Amino acid sequence: MPRYKLTIEYDGSAFMGWQWQDHGPSIQGSLQRAAGQLNGSPVEVIGAGRTDSGVHALGQVAHLDLDKELRTDTVRDAVNQHLKPDLIAVLDCEQVDEDFHARFSATKRHYIYRIIDRRPPLTLDKGKIWRVPVKLDVDAMHQAAQRLAGQHDFSTFRDAQCQADSPVKTLDAIAVRRVADEVELTCSALSFLHRQVRSITGSLVEIGRGKWTETDLVQALKARDRSRCGPVAPADGLYLEKVDYPA
Amino acid sequence: MPRYKLTIEYDGSAFMGWQWQDHGPSIQGSLQRAAGQLNGSPVEVIGAGRTDSGVHALGQVAHLDLDKELRTDTVRDAVNQHLKPDLIAVLDCEQVDEDFHARFSATKRHYIYRIIDRRPPLTLDKGKIWRVPVKLDVDAMHQAAQRLAGQHDFSTFRDAQCQADSPVKTLDAIAVRRVADEVELTCSALSFLHRQVRSITGSLVEIGRGKWTETDLVQALKARDRSRCGPVAPADGLYLEKVDYPA
Repeated sequence: MPRYKLTIEYDGSAFMGWQWQDHGPSIQGSLQRAAGQLNGSPVEVIGAGRTDSGVHALGQVAHLDLDKELRTDTVRDAVNQHLKPDLIAVLDCEQVDEDFHARFSATKRHYIYRIIDRRPPLTLDKGKIWRVPVKLDVDAMHQAAQRLAGQHDFSTFRDAQCQADSPVKTLDAIAVRRVADEVELTCSALSFLHRQVRSITGSLVEIGRGKWTETDLVQALKARDRSRCGPVAPADGLYLEKVDYPA
Repeated sequence: MPRYKLTIEYDGSAFMGWQWQDHGPSIQGSLQRAAGQLNGSPVEVIGAGRTDSGVHALGQVAHLDLDKELRTDTVRDAVNQHLKPDLIAVLDCEQVDEDFHARFSATKRHYIYRIIDRRPPLTLDKGKIWRVPVKLDVDAMHQAAQRLAGQHDFSTFRDAQCQADSPVKTLDAIAVRRVADEVELTCSALSFLHRQVRSITGSLVEIGRGKWTETDLVQALKARDRSRCGPVAPADGLYLEKVDYPA
């Protein structure tokens, strides 16, 4: 069976998350329904990462097998047609070897977290960015964030529901910078714990507001204690930006 | 009576436009209701420009008079509070002289038109940008656009409903450039005709698609004939970016 790799963009606001659920809309469920309509029989769609309810994607990656070989632009356009009116779009489709696996072949996942530090409520970006009503010290956030880079036990920044075998992860890169009116946090790793990015973001915002120092952050990390995490940032501002695979 | 100048951001999608209407929601109507609640009696809110149904603003400007003097941050926060849940936000408020007039004192209006040239449907930016399904020749669009700069009779690029006394306007600057994945058209003038920016944008996109040449655009302008205009671009991508006033 021919295998296809899809690059997918979505507005996660109306979904319970990536993973198929029997009690509500999911990105995976919508994609499986759309691909199944193209294929004429059920199709399983495997994603690189299970984004949470309300989390967006600019470049989620998934793979699926079809019964017969089709042109990649036909797959992209037909799945997009069947996806309507869901706010999910296949940006790109390529045929891949059958040993390609969206989840297990991935070598790095990149996330962006968008924050705007302003007092007025959101209009055009409502649901797409986290509004923090006070000005943030972005340099302090970036500097402190470097203490989280590398391999650590991230138990403090891990949701209680996390099913990963180990709380030890390697954060390859993390940066906080001002981009126009916004504050953008970017981070990349082979894999992340459940709510790790939102937990880290929420804690770094405590530093940006002047409520935490860099030392508080390091002590929270070292405590390996979930109760030491800052307030978890909302789903609104989080985007799965892209996923890397071997060339 | 103290006069206040407001800088306003809004998502125009759910509104019939800036101007108050008795048969549907308007930005002016929402602002007048919110400011009236703060003032305790009716307030008139005068805008710099009457944006059309579905058109957005990053920096619309308006003025209003209140019965008593209030701190500017109180006015901003109270109006924002009363505006909820409408997607309209007062970004800034300053007290101005009583001869300040949002419409008549304005010296320049700046618009941005956002286009994305891609085949997949929109998700995160749905309603906020115009999707054109083929790649656009941005250099050709920019070069042709320069033929519209300066003073011209813009009858071709003027809606049949336009109430301006004269079709002659001076376009101070117009530019088309690629910004990341998007194509951004910016233009500024003392004032614009009704649907002038959307008419120009639609015609320039005909050039970007290779359907029109620069000569076609110049001939359309010179014809001073509405029927020679290209397809008018949708409201989705248009933003009133900012309004200039004397220092």
